[in-house]
Amino acid sequence: MVTEDEAMRRAIALAARGLGTTSPNPVVGCILLGSDGEIVGEGFHAYAGGPHAEIVALAQAGDRARGGTAVVTLEPCNHTGRTGPCSHALINAGIRRVVIAVDDPTPVAAGGAVTMRAAGLQVETGVRRLEATEGNVAWLTAVRRGRPYVTWKFAATLDGRSAAEDGTSQWITSAPARADVHVLRGTVDAIVAGVGTVLADDPQLTVRDLKDGALAIKQPLRVVVDSDGRTPEKARVRDAAALTWIATTRELGAGPDGRVDLNALLAALFGRGIRSVLLEGGPTLAGAFLAAGLVDQVIGYVAPKLLGSGRAALVGAGVATIADAIELDLKDIAQIGPDLRFTAALRMKES
Amino acid sequence: MVTEDEAMRRAIALAARGLGTTSPNPVVGCILLGSDGEIVGEGFHAYAGGPHAEIVALAQAGDRARGGTAVVTLEPCNHTGRTGPCSHALINAGIRRVVIAVDDPTPVAAGGAVTMRAAGLQVETGVRRLEATEGNVAWLTAVRRGRPYVTWKFAATLDGRSAAEDGTSQWITSAPARADVHVLRGTVDAIVAGVGTVLADDPQLTVRDLKDGALAIKQPLRVVVDSDGRTPEKARVRDAAALTWIATTRELGAGPDGRVDLNALLAALFGRGIRSVLLEGGPTLAGAFLAAGLVDQVIGYVAPKLLGSGRAALVGAGVATIADAIELDLKDIAQIGPDLRFTAALRMKES
Ligand SMILES: NC(=O)c1ccc[n+]([C@@H]2O[C@H](COP(=O)([O-])OP(=O)(O)OC[C@H]3O[C@@H](n4cnc5c(N)ncnc54)[C@H](OP(=O)(O)O)[C@@H]3O)[C@@H](O)[C@H]2O)c1
Ligand SMILES: NC(=O)c1ccc[n+]([C@@H]2O[C@H](COP(=O)([O-])OP(=O)(O)OC[C@H]3O[C@@H](n4cnc5c(N)ncnc54)[C@H](OP(=O)(O)O)[C@@H]3O)[C@@H](O)[C@H]2O)c1
Repeated sequence: MVTEDEAMRRAIALAARGLGTTSPNPVVGCILLGSDGEIVGEGFHAYAGGPHAEIVALAQAGDRARGGTAVVTLEPCNHTGRTGPCSHALINAGIRRVVIAVDDPTPVAAGGAVTMRAAGLQVETGVRRLEATEGNVAWLTAVRRGRPYVTWKFAATLDGRSAAEDGTSQWITSAPARADVHVLRGTVDAIVAGVGTVLADDPQLTVRDLKDGALAIKQPLRVVVDSDGRTPEKARVRDAAALTWIATTRELGAGPDGRVDLNALLAALFGRGIRSVLLEGGPTLAGAFLAAGLVDQVIGYVAPKLLGSGRAALVGAGVATIADAIELDLKDIAQIGPDLRFTAALRMKES
Repeated sequence: MVTEDEAMRRAIALAARGLGTTSPNPVVGCILLGSDGEIVGEGFHAYAGGPHAEIVALAQAGDRARGGTAVVTLEPCNHTGRTGPCSHALINAGIRRVVIAVDDPTPVAAGGAVTMRAAGLQVETGVRRLEATEGNVAWLTAVRRGRPYVTWKFAATLDGRSAAEDGTSQWITSAPARADVHVLRGTVDAIVAGVGTVLADDPQLTVRDLKDGALAIKQPLRVVVDSDGRTPEKARVRDAAALTWIATTRELGAGPDGRVDLNALLAALFGRGIRSVLLEGGPTLAGAFLAAGLVDQVIGYVAPKLLGSGRAALVGAGVATIADAIELDLKDIAQIGPDLRFTAALRMKES
């Protein structure tokens, strides 16, 4: 016998397995409880175009779903997209009660709760809403803003330096921290870097299993923000390991500073179905994103080292005086090997 | 019935109450267990010249100490200083067994264990040694190095800035973080700042109860490192709230850069009985201390803010390339109000 609250917790955990492969869809998890309160089916949305979480769980449960309860992290969809409406599927399976964490904010998919209530099902919403919202934060934010959710990731010393005086920076952080970055990359749809970083470091910007060096099956789109298309033909970011987009002013237009228009860049990525972006620098591009209010989350890997000189982790964020500092809320602090990882959300001026 | 291990834990906690008032002596805590294993006396060394922890505990226990066990964080002293030898006091009180965490490393005071064993007492050492060493780290390090234990404290943003582009910096960190600094100041013998900080911010460098603004009874010595004696007559650091030393090259001699010789400074402070120093900046003086290998511990208060420009938290630490970065071990991470406080120990090249 599993409580609905426990089932929702499990559904939220299941949903997270889809991170990085469901865009433009959200991540969703579903647990079906039989009329005796035992789990009879579970599922998560694994990739765009694949079956929704509810359908996976219903297939697993078969007849045992009849008279039972569906516990879902997001309001079941009400429209026929690449798959049929989940609201109908739940009704047809004889589900009696539906427990939902988060309402669907998209006009096209919403309405599942109304449809199911009209069909006589008991529908409760808001169970573990905060947790489920957190689990879907990239998709929910992207849908609300009409641009991908942007996480700026950086590595620095305790005194905020990302390279030493002579330009050396490999490796500021530890092997465990670098492995953690690959896990993080695996949860996003695109990785964005400035041409400065490409010219300086020639990174590959792929997701690898650092134990055996194997490339992950699903690779995020690699994006180089490169006003004049200076990315060298031989740059590793152009190799065959993943798709790459060299985003230039010719294609996207220029901002007032003559560089790539970052709003246009994000709009174009959104149009391609991208809902989450990992901004991997460098300091100049990160400053431009922050100055434009286009960062939602910051993840910093901080090595327990001091340099006292060398390149700053961030430049030109458009802040002149302390009262205008960009404010964040610390969400998490963890030790990753010898290093510190903090996760912080930008404190949003209401938009 | 209290185990010796529990008693030692309590003795270590008691010892910490003396931090900031015992120098040049260590902090010490003592628990006396009667022959039935119950606590019959406890004490800590509260201030230099005052009774040692063992004496306080023996006075409390009276006759009940006979046949009992003394649990002490530091080897009982064997010499007659401002007070008589504790080893003799324990023997005379009829103590049968003595449990010690840390041996006394000073040639003059050591020997207590030997004396007590010779008198027929059972002596065990090393119980909770690591914890007790940590609790006395300033004194133990100072005695070993012949200079005070130096903690560099700074406040900065997540990107390592300690002021904005226009020089504004009040307040980077929160009221709880500032209150925490006052608690920290209360545990040291001296607060050291560069004349740059005095000229820029005119800080008072005192210990206050931030709830009512009251000055603490015991104030650390205030030290301004000021090659040419430029500290203004009206500087708050010269007020009557605490003692102040303006440390000049005239008094201490100059290093190769013509500025105050920092080794001579610390030697002079050690000579005055000072065992722990809080270095409160600014970035230039901190860089010079770090470059000279004169910092033992770093405590950073990090505000969840980004600036992207403005003064760096640390400059000129003598590091040119990443392989020479100053390495630390993170000891503790805490959230203080909205801010992050980390405590890290310098990784020492063997000296
Ligand atoms: N520690 C870390 O986490 C980390 C991460 C990444 C990189 N890095 C370091 O950062 C260094 C490179 O930094 P960087 O600041 O020179 O390069 P960057 O931030 O990677 O790239 C900056 C460049 O992006 C281009 N760009 C195009 N549109 C832009 C816009 N709207 N706003 C801002 N820039 C735009 C500009 O060149 P064009 O105008 O020519 O397009 C600009 O010079 C490397 O040495 C690397 O090691 C550190
Ligand atoms: N965020 C923080 O935690 C924090 C803390 C403190 C200060 N600050 C900021 O730091 C700023 C001042 O920084 P600063 O770097 O100019 O001043 P500083 O580090 O406080 O003082 C530097 C001065 O100390 C003197 N000095 C004497 N002997 C020295 C030696 N051996 N090595 C280095 N310096 C020696 C030098 O002046 P002489 O040669 O004339 O003696 C030097 O210019 C202020 O604006 C303050 O707001 C920030």
